[in-house]
Amino acid sequence: MRSTSVCIVGFGLIGGSFAAALKSAGHVGEIVGVVKRTETGQRALETGLADRVTTSIAEGIAGVDVVLLAVPMLAMRELLEAILPVVAEHTVITDAGSVKRCFIEDARAVFGSLERIVPGHPIAGREASGIEAADATLFHDRKVLLTPVPETRAGAVKTVSDLWAQTGATVECLAPEHHDRVLAATSHLPHVLAYALVDVLARQQESEEIFRYAAGGFRDFTRIASSDAVMWRDVCLTNREAVVDALDDFFRGLDALRQAIVEGDGDTLESTFRRAKASRDSYAG
Amino acid sequence: MRSTSVCIVGFGLIGGSFAAALKSAGHVGEIVGVVKRTETGQRALETGLADRVTTSIAEGIAGVDVVLLAVPMLAMRELLEAILPVVAEHTVITDAGSVKRCFIEDARAVFGSLERIVPGHPIAGREASGIEAADATLFHDRKVLLTPVPETRAGAVKTVSDLWAQTGATVECLAPEHHDRVLAATSHLPHVLAYALVDVLARQQESEEIFRYAAGGFRDFTRIASSDAVMWRDVCLTNREAVVDALDDFFRGLDALRQAIVEGDGDTLESTFRRAKASRDSYAG
Repeated sequence: MRSTSVCIVGFGLIGGSFAAALKSAGHVGEIVGVVKRTETGQRALETGLADRVTTSIAEGIAGVDVVLLAVPMLAMRELLEAILPVVAEHTVITDAGSVKRCFIEDARAVFGSLERIVPGHPIAGREASGIEAADATLFHDRKVLLTPVPETRAGAVKTVSDLWAQTGATVECLAPEHHDRVLAATSHLPHVLAYALVDVLARQQESEEIFRYAAGGFRDFTRIASSDAVMWRDVCLTNREAVVDALDDFFRGLDALRQAIVEGDGDTLESTFRRAKASRDSYAG
Repeated sequence: MRSTSVCIVGFGLIGGSFAAALKSAGHVGEIVGVVKRTETGQRALETGLADRVTTSIAEGIAGVDVVLLAVPMLAMRELLEAILPVVAEHTVITDAGSVKRCFIEDARAVFGSLERIVPGHPIAGREASGIEAADATLFHDRKVLLTPVPETRAGAVKTVSDLWAQTGATVECLAPEHHDRVLAATSHLPHVLAYALVDVLARQQESEEIFRYAAGGFRDFTRIASSDAVMWRDVCLTNREAVVDALDDFFRGLDALRQAIVEGDGDTLESTFRRAKASRDSYAG
C-alpha cells in the first residue's frame, strides 16, 4: 500500500500532518495537495510534504487511488459536488471530519451510495492550525475512527485503514451515530466550554489582570480555545443535537455543584470532586 | 534573609515544594516541618527537604522566624488557634491558601490583629498532591500574591516576600477582595468546570468508551480535575460568593452559545470562538 497515490484536499494541520506522516513512513506513492492559497501549496512543495500541488480539484484528484478531504464540515458538501463529475472509477474517498453522520448524509446526497466512500476521523488535534503546524507524529499512538456504512466496500475500508496505519495510528470502526455522541461528550463539549470560559473572562472589566494571574492549570484548561474557529463552528452546527444533549447533561451536573456551593454542602462537593478525580486518574493513567 | 528559620505546617505539594525551592536556592536557615503523618515527616527528612520534623505545632514553631501555613482553607482557623498560645513574639506568620478574605477573617478572629500576619498565595499548582509531588522549580517564574491589610507590618511583608523571591517567584501585593474575585475566575471556576465535566461523563453509560476515545485536548482540559478534592472543596466553601458569581457569568455565556447552536446561528458561534481564540492567543503568547 506504500505506492497508493493520495490526494489531500485541505493542507492544514490535519492534511499536512497526514502527508508528513506518510512521507516520514517512507510512503512512495505520489502525494498531491489541493490547496486554496498558493502560499500553502508553495510551502507544501518546499517542505516536501506534497509532490505536486494545485488549486483545482479536477487536476488534483485525476487518477489518484485515495482522496482525503481535510476541510471544515460545512465545506464538505460543495467539495463532494465538485469531485463527483471528475473522479475516476477506482478512486476511494475518505475524510477527516469531526462529525460522521453529517458527512454521510452529504456523501449520500451527492454520490447516492457510499460504496467507495469511507467516513473517517483521526482523534488527534492541536490548537495550532495551518500547514505550519503540520507534524509527522501527530497521529502516533492516536486512534483513527472509521464509520463505514453497510454499502461501503470492504476493500475501500482496507485501503484507507492501511494508509492511516502508516501514520502510526490505531484504526477502529464504529457506528456513525455512536461516534457523534461519544465525540460530542469528549471533544465538542469541552471545546464549547473552553471557548465560553475564555470569552466570558475576556469580556470582564478585569480581563487583563485575570489573564495575568492565570496559572498553568488555566493555560492547559483553555488551550483548546485557541483552536480554529471555523472548524469548531461547523462541528457545533453539524452535530447540533448531540452537542446540545451533552451541554444539557453538563448544565445539570454543574448546577448541582453550584447548589452545593450555595448551600455550603461540603459533603456533596468533596464526594463529587473525589469521584471525578478517581475517574480522571484511572483513564489518564 | 538566607538564615531566616522557617516552619512549614503541611508538607504537601506546596509546603514541600517551598522547602525544596529554598534548599535548592542555598537557604541556610533551619527548615522545620510540622506534619500530620509520620511517613510524610520521614520522607521530608530523607529527601533533605526538612532539617527537623515534628507532629507538634508548639515544637515546630518554637522560636522560628517565619511560619508558612500550607493546609486546606478550612483547616486554617484551628491551626491559628493552636499557634496563638505558643508562638514567639518575633515570629511572622504567612499562608499559601487560595482564598485570602477567609484567611484574613480567621486570623483576625484568632489573633485580633494581622500585624505580623502576611496572607499569601502562590499562583502555582499541579494536579499531583502530597510530598511526593514536591518540586524545587514549582514556583519558578510564577507569581506569589500577598494581600497584607493596613495593620500588617511592612517588615513582616518584606520577610515573607524575600523568602518567596528565593524560590524564583515574582511577588506582587494586591487587595484581598480583588484577589478572591480574580482567582475565582481564573482558577476556582475552571476547577469546578473540570470536576463537573469529568463527573458528568463518568456517570454516563458509555463512560468507558468516552474516556477511551478522548484525545490530548481533553486530557489537558480535564487535568485539573485530578487535583486534591479536600483542598478544592474548601476553596469553593470559603470563596463562595465570588465562585457563584463567576459560575453565573459563565452560565450566561454558555447559555448564549447553546442558544446559537440550537438556532444554527453560525455567525454568533464563529465570532465568539474567534474572540476567545484571539484572547487566549494573546495572553498565552
